[in-house]
Amino acid sequence: MSIDLPVTFSDIRGAAERLCGVANRTPVMTSRTFDEMTGREVFFKCENFQRGGAFKFRGAYNRLSQLSADEKSRGVVAFSSGNHAQGVALAAKLLGIPAAIVMPDDAPPVKLEATRGYGAEVIVYDRLTGNREAIASQLSQERGMTLVPPFNDTRIIAGQGTAAMELLEQVPDLDAIVSPVGGGGLISGCSIAAKAMKPSIQIYGVEAVGADDGKQSLQRGEIVHIDPPNTIADGIRTQAIGTLTFTIMRKLLRDIVIVSDDEIIAALRFVIPRMKIVVEPTGAVPIAAVMQNRIPANLKRVGVIVSGGNIGMELLSEIVQATGLGSKTD
Amino acid sequence: MSIDLPVTFSDIRGAAERLCGVANRTPVMTSRTFDEMTGREVFFKCENFQRGGAFKFRGAYNRLSQLSADEKSRGVVAFSSGNHAQGVALAAKLLGIPAAIVMPDDAPPVKLEATRGYGAEVIVYDRLTGNREAIASQLSQERGMTLVPPFNDTRIIAGQGTAAMELLEQVPDLDAIVSPVGGGGLISGCSIAAKAMKPSIQIYGVEAVGADDGKQSLQRGEIVHIDPPNTIADGIRTQAIGTLTFTIMRKLLRDIVIVSDDEIIAALRFVIPRMKIVVEPTGAVPIAAVMQNRIPANLKRVGVIVSGGNIGMELLSEIVQATGLGSKTD
Repeated sequence: MSIDLPVTFSDIRGAAERLCGVANRTPVMTSRTFDEMTGREVFFKCENFQRGGAFKFRGAYNRLSQLSADEKSRGVVAFSSGNHAQGVALAAKLLGIPAAIVMPDDAPPVKLEATRGYGAEVIVYDRLTGNREAIASQLSQERGMTLVPPFNDTRIIAGQGTAAMELLEQVPDLDAIVSPVGGGGLISGCSIAAKAMKPSIQIYGVEAVGADDGKQSLQRGEIVHIDPPNTIADGIRTQAIGTLTFTIMRKLLRDIVIVSDDEIIAALRFVIPRMKIVVEPTGAVPIAAVMQNRIPANLKRVGVIVSGGNIGMELLSEIVQATGLGSKTD
Repeated sequence: MSIDLPVTFSDIRGAAERLCGVANRTPVMTSRTFDEMTGREVFFKCENFQRGGAFKFRGAYNRLSQLSADEKSRGVVAFSSGNHAQGVALAAKLLGIPAAIVMPDDAPPVKLEATRGYGAEVIVYDRLTGNREAIASQLSQERGMTLVPPFNDTRIIAGQGTAAMELLEQVPDLDAIVSPVGGGGLISGCSIAAKAMKPSIQIYGVEAVGADDGKQSLQRGEIVHIDPPNTIADGIRTQAIGTLTFTIMRKLLRDIVIVSDDEIIAALRFVIPRMKIVVEPTGAVPIAAVMQNRIPANLKRVGVIVSGGNIGMELLSEIVQATGLGSKTD
């Protein structure tokens, strides 16, 4: 398997060594009520407890730590208004690398502040008139900064794969892993690790309604570009998966299933009051897929990659208020 | 030590055996940012992840599992509008014991529903004209039900003590444990376990402004009754600690410190967005005490008992909304 693919399990083991003592070995949580509801045993790999609040730190740190001394001194640049920005900013801070993050000027002020809080230089651009790739590319040329792509990069993919490697160390006998699909970096790395550790495991990706470029791509056998998606799951609003991630996903994924925003919100309205964990909409995407029984019933022991917890407090407030939900927990 | 006290470490070890495989061995979480802010290493014992959403299940299950077959068949009664109700209801359900919970008719509907959701019979009374003790006592007499007190009971105290026993197994070398004080059941059990496992450990209780009956009691050397407190921390609105808990607390506590509601809210506004955990106001009481440096600076490795996570979603919504808080996590 690994001969044909751009990332090997050995790459992921290498990433795990680099991340050891740096990234959090995030806990796996369970819920008796969720298991009863779904008729399965579900294991939540809580990347919402990862440094930076999402799995993104894994790939970013694995990528940045392998830069040459010269590249490190010139710094890195990334464009993102979300978790990739924070992952790169935090990894850069820990490694003493200058970081510039290109973000739209209408990004929530709290996200701009959070990224600055990690010590990164934030460069804003006008979303209507600016071109973030061009700005990042210009910075890269002018300052010699290394561009850190969000997903289509072997070292980023290898870093993200450590999430599934840990999960299978923590819970060895899983039948399936269910993960959100944005650009495909997370699920690609996780697929390689999981299939190497347990070849019979089934990998399911999950996308939101209107953000199903990955599913379309697998169906057509080529990368499909879609219009900017409008889902609440802001981490998977990508318009196309990458060339590397497409190669890995078409080989290793069993399927991609789809959930609606209402189903994502219902998942949040379960995990927040019941499991007492703060999860962002994207992190609830695979939880929704299991709640809605979108994967075959014979897959009894299911690992769910809860990708992150970086939900804005205003959105959290909206989602939980007036739900009539109490706090029964079991 | 244990000779003079009504509960021994052996009682707590016995409780731990009864709870093994039944109660959750809750995780201990940490936050690099919290440690930097406070200049300490702080270990959060997350009883918000306990079954029933709070430590109360430990004591309730330890108490109920030791009833005779005859007592079990007649059932149990408790009065509480909070976590004790849910703890007793859940323990009773697991043990197949009928349970009646006496709750005020103006309790939040979600709390009534949650308690019924665990299979308990909920008996409501008029808070202005009714007397919950009298109602519970009448049920106890008429039906032969065993009254399960919330804190002033050796087996309840022993059960709660398993929280600190686990914490010191998970993090052996703590300098101090900080715990909320309501009726004193939690801190009494935790003190006995912790002092037995590490005699040099310092135990600090925390109460809210206006709910400082425990502190007054320790200062005067007798149990002081106060008017109904008005703090947001509804789990510690007790008007007096118990005779058993007073005996233990005056012997083993280093001090009780006080936090304000604003400080409790500030603690919630740290842990929810930053640590991605849902905590109820009472669970944030000891976190607030550490944030505000209410314990001596030389205590560097501090265990905090996060007592529960049963916050109503409307209150959660109010607390997090418009805080201007982002989701930076580290």
